[in-house]
Amino acid sequence: MPAQPDIQPVMSVSEVSDLLDRVFPQWNTDGALVVTDIRPGGCTVRLNASEKHLRPGGTVSGPSLFTLADIAGYVCVLSHAGPEALAVTTNLNINFMRKAEAGPVDGHCRILKLGRSLLVFDIEMIAEKTEHLVAHATGTYSIPPKR
Amino acid sequence: MPAQPDIQPVMSVSEVSDLLDRVFPQWNTDGALVVTDIRPGGCTVRLNASEKHLRPGGTVSGPSLFTLADIAGYVCVLSHAGPEALAVTTNLNINFMRKAEAGPVDGHCRILKLGRSLLVFDIEMIAEKTEHLVAHATGTYSIPPKR
Amino acid sequence: MPAQPDIQPVMSVSEVSDLLDRVFPQWNTDGALVVTDIRPGGCTVRLNASEKHLRPGGTVSGPSLFTLADIAGYVCVLSHAGPEALAVTTNLNINFMRKAEAGPVDGHCRILKLGRSLLVFDIEMIAEKTEHLVAHATGTYSIPPKR
Amino acid sequence: MPAQPDIQPVMSVSEVSDLLDRVFPQWNTDGALVVTDIRPGGCTVRLNASEKHLRPGGTVSGPSLFTLADIAGYVCVLSHAGPEALAVTTNLNINFMRKAEAGPVDGHCRILKLGRSLLVFDIEMIAEKTEHLVAHATGTYSIPPKR
Repeated sequence: MPAQPDIQPVMSVSEVSDLLDRVFPQWNTDGALVVTDIRPGGCTVRLNASEKHLRPGGTVSGPSLFTLADIAGYVCVLSHAGPEALAVTTNLNINFMRKAEAGPVDGHCRILKLGRSLLVFDIEMIAEKTEHLVAHATGTYSIPPKR
Repeated sequence: MPAQPDIQPVMSVSEVSDLLDRVFPQWNTDGALVVTDIRPGGCTVRLNASEKHLRPGGTVSGPSLFTLADIAGYVCVLSHAGPEALAVTTNLNINFMRKAEAGPVDGHCRILKLGRSLLVFDIEMIAEKTEHLVAHATGTYSIPPKR
Repeated sequence: MPAQPDIQPVMSVSEVSDLLDRVFPQWNTDGALVVTDIRPGGCTVRLNASEKHLRPGGTVSGPSLFTLADIAGYVCVLSHAGPEALAVTTNLNINFMRKAEAGPVDGHCRILKLGRSLLVFDIEMIAEKTEHLVAHATGTYSIPPKR
Repeated sequence: MPAQPDIQPVMSVSEVSDLLDRVFPQWNTDGALVVTDIRPGGCTVRLNASEKHLRPGGTVSGPSLFTLADIAGYVCVLSHAGPEALAVTTNLNINFMRKAEAGPVDGHCRILKLGRSLLVFDIEMIAEKTEHLVAHATGTYSIPPKR
């Protein structure tokens, strides 16, 4: 993708994690999600998938991977557009490509567009053990005007 | 949509619910999902959304509604293609239209195509209290060949 | 879907067709598209598919059906939000279900949400000859603020 | 994305272009599309957008960019799975991010999964003049069994 030198984060990993814990305590009730990196134009969130995240066939479930994608997009919004905790997902499209066993899945998220009222992102979800691309998603967050 | 007279369910609400409990105990760990109807070419699943399903702003979260859509699609697969518990979601696209407060959300799911190896569905998610269309999704399940 | 009694069209079939011809002459260079109905909360656009709209296998091509979906969404915007000719598609997701031979394909389009800045729609594309559901799409138009 | 060393093309740019001209003469009736690169796990197709590809506002239209995405996915199928001219798109999701003026738009397409019966791809569409990411799409081709 072309460089987007104007997209710089305004919050750090610990600042975003603290904000999420404060305004959105349900984001991570089972402690399985960890924000591991925030960088210009993107972020990485890890899902430590355990038994409860699996579905028949022993693979990480769709809702678990959707949650990873949705939260990673939200971390991109918070870290790059500022602590606008009321931004909401308007669309998310996810493709499931390969099975992932229990274990860490890293969601590498990239900002495709940061406009005044929308943030568009995509995310590659990669199982740490096999290095396989497990799922890919594209989504849009609506960012409310600042008061 | 044109009538699809050849799409008849082969399992009842109680048969599908029992099968899910047996092969996919994680499908409903919090007891919030209830299969309420199975009919030719479709089904309805209800999410009884409570505090833990909300996100900032007090609205039912994206992952909660994604789970409703994903499970309803699975109920369509099980009830119409038979107890193929290993069918997997390959794609799901969801649009979030309006806020939904805590309370019941009904997911009315419709089979758009039931082929030999794929089932395509869409689903309207409607808040019981306001009768508003909260979210809409389209998805595909891959159905493995019978052994 | 719940009734949306507040969604009333403000332009007729002939008014929208004339407007399209004037501001967007490329919309229908081959004369294959016809706006056939505008109703509260929806519209129908017909594609008269001929040889040039086919792809290998003798089926109506993806781009031809995408165009039908995109134009029908635009007709919903124009007819219900007014002649905002600069509205742009931000997202479109399309599923192709069955082959369609050359001949009319009717796109029945429905407004899922008409907000201040976004219109979300879905559309069922049905081959007139077989009455089969050929394709289904969901999309979003961004509506610029009125000047 | 993790390396996919097992994904090697089996056809060259000129072989695929010749095949398209032979089996799918409608693919490029206006001569605006050019296959410019085929590489392990991906390809690039260029759209030389002119007046007829524009929509109101002077920007390259949605159907033109959809066509670019759809054809690039097909070039990935043909070049990597072999000359299976009957492969069909089953799903395509496209996000439009920025306006593109008339001129070349390069579609850089990447295979996310090449299975026995499905190929999943994504594509970044970049305007040559501005180097802006104009649109992004994800799609699936169904590959029929070899006879």
